[in-house]
Amino acid sequence: MANTYWSEKTLQLLRRMNNFYLPGSCRPNCLRFEIDGAQVGWIPPRVVLLLARFPEVFSPPHGGAVSLCPILNSYGRRSEAVDTVLQTLRQDESLTCLKGWRDEKYSVMPKFSDAPLMWMERAATSLFGVKRYGVHINGYTVSDSGEVSMWLARRSPSKQTYPGLLDNLAAGGLAAGVGIKQTLVKECQEEACIPAATAEKARPVSTVSYTYEDEEGVFAESQFVFDLKLPLDFQPTVGDGEVQEFYLLPIEEVKEMLASDDFKPNCAMVVLDFLIRHSFIEADTEPYYQEFVEGLHQTL
Amino acid sequence: MANTYWSEKTLQLLRRMNNFYLPGSCRPNCLRFEIDGAQVGWIPPRVVLLLARFPEVFSPPHGGAVSLCPILNSYGRRSEAVDTVLQTLRQDESLTCLKGWRDEKYSVMPKFSDAPLMWMERAATSLFGVKRYGVHINGYTVSDSGEVSMWLARRSPSKQTYPGLLDNLAAGGLAAGVGIKQTLVKECQEEACIPAATAEKARPVSTVSYTYEDEEGVFAESQFVFDLKLPLDFQPTVGDGEVQEFYLLPIEEVKEMLASDDFKPNCAMVVLDFLIRHSFIEADTEPYYQEFVEGLHQTL
Repeated sequence: MANTYWSEKTLQLLRRMNNFYLPGSCRPNCLRFEIDGAQVGWIPPRVVLLLARFPEVFSPPHGGAVSLCPILNSYGRRSEAVDTVLQTLRQDESLTCLKGWRDEKYSVMPKFSDAPLMWMERAATSLFGVKRYGVHINGYTVSDSGEVSMWLARRSPSKQTYPGLLDNLAAGGLAAGVGIKQTLVKECQEEACIPAATAEKARPVSTVSYTYEDEEGVFAESQFVFDLKLPLDFQPTVGDGEVQEFYLLPIEEVKEMLASDDFKPNCAMVVLDFLIRHSFIEADTEPYYQEFVEGLHQTL
Repeated sequence: MANTYWSEKTLQLLRRMNNFYLPGSCRPNCLRFEIDGAQVGWIPPRVVLLLARFPEVFSPPHGGAVSLCPILNSYGRRSEAVDTVLQTLRQDESLTCLKGWRDEKYSVMPKFSDAPLMWMERAATSLFGVKRYGVHINGYTVSDSGEVSMWLARRSPSKQTYPGLLDNLAAGGLAAGVGIKQTLVKECQEEACIPAATAEKARPVSTVSYTYEDEEGVFAESQFVFDLKLPLDFQPTVGDGEVQEFYLLPIEEVKEMLASDDFKPNCAMVVLDFLIRHSFIEADTEPYYQEFVEGLHQTL
């Protein structure tokens, strides 16, 4: 039988990471963020109030939506006008997310397959509930006797977000105009000193999608997931300082750690997805099997 | 680059199989089907009208829900009372789904992890939008040079549903009280004459979930997905007559066939899930990659 404590903790993780869909979330009070009539995000009520100070950029709320002014009719005009607003809002002490300003441009579009309508500073996306995309890489080894181990990173204590917690081998956000595999190769190189020729062997296997809210806003994210089977003698090493240490752990130990609070939550979801795809969880003995898969792919 | 025609056809498949969530579906007009205050399904308006003829079993609609009468306070009482109603409704010519009566009992519960509150005849579940669970098995081979091929079944022309269309190696619904692996072994044996010792090697890898409506009702389904790697010299053979023929096809050919109308739609979804997990679809070149994964796991 499955470990009940583990199952419950894992279900709680998925619920927390999808709390935007749960009763009691700010969702019913959010306004849709629309560009040219298409929804690209969800704006929490307190942000709506702040945006009212910039009527030359944001039209007054209408029909449950906040839209960009129609005069902002190109990718460049929209991006620059919103960026100017955000530069002003950075002075606002209450917007803690903007203290994490990164000078990273994220594409804004209704769906990943749509052409971007503008770019937005990464740190501001949660104010608008704009969907962010990234890449996460499961690094693993298989011993001669078939035992699977997984490489995990421990985040640097100086990281802005989730300092000191466990992370996947490498991961990173998709900046505007940069490809998925390109981001993967770059992050593998920068964070773990994995040569491009090795990183290129990573295989696309899944996505993990979720939406949560916290005091900083609405986080709607989809991660493209890759598996990278590494040689037994390969050793990732600390690169740009985002990681303090790498560990190679037996998969059962990794599984147990999912139920600790030692994991960056979205990385724990990527590991759970790995455990399911690689048959480390049995459909008959894990009562939440179907709910686990469901919780990894919430996007409606 | 991905084949645009293939991508669009595959996206259409996923939209059709999730049309209950799309604008224009009967969902806003459905009533929740509740037992003991917990939702277990969605009842379309025309079925609500029929149920009004049985006030000793179904309480009058209240607050957007139809409930079983409180006197039906046990698994056995609920199951028998509803079964009696359904036996009467079988005479109703307009309920075409009940012509497919199978004498198969399906468990009814809010979530898979909850204790069943009653059983219901399989053919009636779409009248109540009660969730159905099943097992689908991807049978595949890997040649010495690494080429993957997949076993597909062509359904018998005399099957009640989707006659003559392509299907997974084996599949079947989860009857009340029967385990997932147990169902898998049974279906492999009955449909494809796969010995239990071989079927047991199937590995749990995923679920595929979707909800569609058609003239017969609301189909809310989750399939537990297993991969079964078969020896190159293994040959499934026709068993109970549900299948007319088995084919072993190169994976690229299977992929192309997803865009034909030759597949039973939910089996095509199971194949798409296989293609994604086994890296036959690239995240960078398939524009709908993220939407494909999302479309395979719609349950909110």
